[in-house]
Amino acid sequence: MNNHYDDCPLTYALEIIGGKWRMLILFYLLDGGLRYNQLKKKLCGITNIMLTRSLRELEEYGLVKRIQYSEIPPHVEYFITERAEKLIPSLVAITEWGKEQRSLAKGE
Amino acid sequence: MNNHYDDCPLTYALEIIGGKWRMLILFYLLDGGLRYNQLKKKLCGITNIMLTRSLRELEEYGLVKRIQYSEIPPHVEYFITERAEKLIPSLVAITEWGKEQRSLAKGE
Repeated sequence: MNNHYDDCPLTYALEIIGGKWRMLILFYLLDGGLRYNQLKKKLCGITNIMLTRSLRELEEYGLVKRIQYSEIPPHVEYFITERAEKLIPSLVAITEWGKEQRSLAKGE
Repeated sequence: MNNHYDDCPLTYALEIIGGKWRMLILFYLLDGGLRYNQLKKKLCGITNIMLTRSLRELEEYGLVKRIQYSEIPPHVEYFITERAEKLIPSLVAITEWGKEQRSLAKGE
């Protein structure tokens, strides 16, 4: 592993998926597409500004795609892309660790 | 996977290791103990306030331990704990993803 900041791939990854919400948004989209309001409901405490900004950033990084359905009434759903699918092992590993830590904390 | 915020283990994990610096600190301690100034040098751009606070939080969560050496001159080193070692697969997975994404970005 390279320990120089500029070359650190973890720093690079955290620039893309770090922050309070982006990793969680990807997590909630793992099971399939969601509408804006469905996502907002899951991300308890997120403001519209933060959700809109996070989704836009994830779209810019090619991790989320926005699909508009021309049904009546028309609506938009957000999906993870193939690029984001490669993150699944990381999200699963952190989630597993969180599960374990939470049971430890409850048992203490 | 449970999608309710209160029960989401990813939310729980990100409370512990989220934020700009904590995951990076753990990453840099993977190869062995480091002194405060060595760590600061690796975490380009971190302030003393942020590094001190992040180390204290990681200590409180039992992810980092602080060992004082009574040599002359005395010094302190920070190490990851066994609890944090369980995070290694997550850190490695995100780092691998970062590597891949960076080469994609460079190739584009």
